[in-house]
This record gives sequence, structure tokens and C-alpha cells, in this order.
Amino acid sequence: MNIGQDTKKGNDMQITAQKYGYSRVIRCSFDEALERTRKTLQQQGFGVQAEIDISTALHEKLGVNIPRQVILGACNPQLAYQALQAEPEISLLLPCNVTVQQSGSNVQVSVIDAEKLMQFVGKPELKPIAMEAKRRLQAVLENI
Amino acid sequence: MNIGQDTKKGNDMQITAQKYGYSRVIRCSFDEALERTRKTLQQQGFGVQAEIDISTALHEKLGVNIPRQVILGACNPQLAYQALQAEPEISLLLPCNVTVQQSGSNVQVSVIDAEKLMQFVGKPELKPIAMEAKRRLQAVLENI
Repeated sequence: MNIGQDTKKGNDMQITAQKYGYSRVIRCSFDEALERTRKTLQQQGFGVQAEIDISTALHEKLGVNIPRQVILGACNPQLAYQALQAEPEISLLLPCNVTVQQSGSNVQVSVIDAEKLMQFVGKPELKPIAMEAKRRLQAVLENI
Repeated sequence: MNIGQDTKKGNDMQITAQKYGYSRVIRCSFDEALERTRKTLQQQGFGVQAEIDISTALHEKLGVNIPRQVILGACNPQLAYQALQAEPEISLLLPCNVTVQQSGSNVQVSVIDAEKLMQFVGKPELKPIAMEAKRRLQAVLENI
């Protein structure tokens, strides 16, 4: 992954590694970031199988206000199928989460580190599948 | 958690610990198991925020047939809110997955081990929240 300046969209914000994922802050509205994330996931072969508006859900259930935040459950069918063949219980760790959250006047998009998550399972057969998912999710952040 | 015979529903199948979750095989139809799982999650304070019919999705996308399998994304609002306060990136690991899958003529219901998943994050503040989620998810399996 290139970690550095992205001049393509006039955006100088870098991709940063987190403990169990990668993030990038982009300068646009929340709705535009969400739409760009959905579209880029599709370009990288991920369907969005679930979309959870966690900030709205918490507001409705508890009356609390947190910065806007949506969890997208992204699933690449080929990779999910391969993972299921290697490990029938893997659905407990699927789909791959991608989050879009308001961060001041910018928006932070984060993707799970599929390699780290799959290490958790301890099956070497999963490694190439997890690496491919990770590569594609990093490409989402690069191309958003 | 009681691991042993459940005579309440005439069901002698035990809860078994997996590497990163807990499972129980129950004797009923898939649809009944799914309905019982949704209802028991609700009784334990979890809303079902996402429902992914993974077997249908893979059939539609790839033409492959795997045993029926649905992923439920379960979220307890109080626990999710506490977790977000302790760790703003935690959405990458939410909601808690519960899976319902056909297993021969029976149905296997599995819940993620929230404690193990949260260990992944390495924040001690998350531990009591993860333990409470785990306790409630185990209660789902006991009471299903």
C-alpha cells in the first residue's frame, strides 16, 4: 500500500495503520464519503451486505449523540466462499467491516485488517484469502 | 455458563466452545431456529441490526450451494455505546455476530466470543463490557 500524499483528488490526508485496521480521513461531506465508500467497495469486488447506522440507532435507543457513523458489512463472494470452505465457522467473523465516521469537519473511513482478524482463527489456509481481502480493502482506501 | 443437558425443551445437545465462539446444535427446522434466535437475542437486550443470508448471496453471486446459513448482527445499545466511549474505532468489530446454520437435519447456532474478540483490541477498559456481552450471548444459547 502506498502511504503518502494522494494528489488525485487534491487530498493530502494519509492512510494510517490502526491496531486492527487502516483509516483515511477525507475532506468531503459525510454523505459523499459514504457514497464514495460504497462505490469504491463495489469496484474492488465487495458487495455491501449490511449497513448499520450506529449513530442513529444509539440516538433512537438511548437518546445519546455521537458523531455520525455508519458500519458497512462488505463481502467479496469469492473470498467469502473460499474462507467458508477452509473454516466452516468463519461466518462469526464475516463480513469485513468498513466504517465511515464524522471526524470534525472531515470524514474518517476505516477498514478492518482482514489479515489480523484471520490470524485470530489460527488456520494457515486462511492466510492467502485474508491477504487478498486486506489488499482489496487497502485499495478501497487508496481509491476512495 | 452451564454446559450440559438442557431438558427444558427436550433438547439434549450441549453448548460447545469453539476457538472464537460458542455453538449449540438444536433440533428443529432452520426457520424455527432463526426465529428462536432472533427472539432470544431480543430477550437478552440485543437488537438485530443486520441479517445476511450468506448461503443465498453465494448462490446468487457464484451459483454455489452451501448449507443454509444466516449471519445476524446483534447489538446491545448500552454495551455498544460504552465500547465506543472506550475505543472510538471499535465499530470495526461491531456488531456481535450470531450465526444460524443448517447442520444435517439439525441447526447449529453460534455466537462470537466477545471477550476473545475484544482482547484483540488490547484495551483493559473494554474487558468488563466484553464480559457482559459474552455472558448475554451465552445466555442466548442457553435459552434458545
